Amino acid sequence: MHSEVDISFIGAGNVAWHLAVALEAAGYQVREIYSRTLEHATALADKLYNATPTQSLDFSGSKATVFFIAVPDSQVAQIAAALKVPEKAIVAHTSGSLPLEVLQDHEYRGVFYPLQTFSKHTKLDIHSVPFCLETSDESTELLLVEMAQQISQTVYLVNSAERKVLHIGAVFACNFTNHLLGIAKNILDREDLEFDLLKPLIQETVQKALHAGHPAYVQTGPANRNDQQIIDQHIDYLSAYPSEQHIYRTLTESIRHSK
Amino acid sequence: MHSEVDISFIGAGNVAWHLAVALEAAGYQVREIYSRTLEHATALADKLYNATPTQSLDFSGSKATVFFIAVPDSQVAQIAAALKVPEKAIVAHTSGSLPLEVLQDHEYRGVFYPLQTFSKHTKLDIHSVPFCLETSDESTELLLVEMAQQISQTVYLVNSAERKVLHIGAVFACNFTNHLLGIAKNILDREDLEFDLLKPLIQETVQKALHAGHPAYVQTGPANRNDQQIIDQHIDYLSAYPSEQHIYRTLTESIRHSK
Repeated sequence: MHSEVDISFIGAGNVAWHLAVALEAAGYQVREIYSRTLEHATALADKLYNATPTQSLDFSGSKATVFFIAVPDSQVAQIAAALKVPEKAIVAHTSGSLPLEVLQDHEYRGVFYPLQTFSKHTKLDIHSVPFCLETSDESTELLLVEMAQQISQTVYLVNSAERKVLHIGAVFACNFTNHLLGIAKNILDREDLEFDLLKPLIQETVQKALHAGHPAYVQTGPANRNDQQIIDQHIDYLSAYPSEQHIYRTLTESIRHSK
Repeated sequence: MHSEVDISFIGAGNVAWHLAVALEAAGYQVREIYSRTLEHATALADKLYNATPTQSLDFSGSKATVFFIAVPDSQVAQIAAALKVPEKAIVAHTSGSLPLEVLQDHEYRGVFYPLQTFSKHTKLDIHSVPFCLETSDESTELLLVEMAQQISQTVYLVNSAERKVLHIGAVFACNFTNHLLGIAKNILDREDLEFDLLKPLIQETVQKALHAGHPAYVQTGPANRNDQQIIDQHIDYLSAYPSEQHIYRTLTESIRHSK
């Protein structure tokens, strides 16, 4: 037990759920769970050894010394401003897109950002989730890094500027990729072809990309081999779908120029 | 043993390798392996029970009744024209992008296309690979479908026009996705951030997309929630990289319009 460091959670959503359970399993005592909706706080507290659900943001009498704010981005600033914690307590938010300074009312502050998408009822191996940490000072850094290392094998110190770049990378690698998969499904749907047909190839493509030294090393397809005849056929086929055609042209040009 | 149907392979590359081993394991006898380079034919024949390596395309005396042409796309037409097979034998190619009619010199012809990317030394569960089949006639269809079903749980009849659409879908879902992963890595590399940080998120994103009813149902990110402030920040950041910026704008607009 890390009896000197007890923790509390502001928020009872997916991120709080996974972090509270993992940190308790690592030996940290969870003291309180806050939610605006008491049932939500109670539902999470019931999963824990001895946590108290609460609707109050006044934690001045709490035994916790680290407070995690794990609420939607739009609520963090307001909650941080209203939050009362014991003297010298650390306040950390878990958001990837908010700066550390959103917690400026608190002297000891940090970002404790798990770079993963969480679903409450999906089992997730938290040890493989990279944690990106940023802190106001060295003692807070030492404490949060130790805590993250108890539950994850991958802990990085990432400042707010770097976090922004990570986010841009994630937009390309995740949001845009997801959208392309959706377009592929639409293309197949229109011809009554099962999207299932492509799934094994998609899985294998992503595995190869992530295990190659660089995804560019395993790039394939008509743009990569400069097969103008096939590219023309595809662009011609897509002429009824100008948005898809425009994406096809844009990414084909980009692949060609990256060679 | 399917003693009435013996097979031979024209080609000794990745596809021939996986198919020959799987079909032999399913009880089909492999009679001959052809390669221009005898060592290649021998290397594969040595993996099999009783196959003869050969450099000749004259199979008129062969006991095989199904001949698989598994060579690079650019060589299929030429090899098919030179190939001599016994009367009533079936000739099938394994290419996703060539029409059935490239085999027009042969009366009984088929396409036997495994929709997957193969590497010779990577273990692959062939039972999960979808096979797309097209044939010249019903008796050939019956025989090739039975054969495919012996080695895969997913066998579809897909004509040449549908195969073209599948290919366009695969360009979006695989080639373009791979390119976006490469761009994400470039963005991180420039700031000395490890691409490993994003890998668990990418894996989870793709799993969610493939298990949702439609990838659009699990779309996230600034474009999806119409977060103009973040989008402007990202576009501004990318102004030194016009190609990336152009892709960012194009896909952001497409996500917005698809909602």
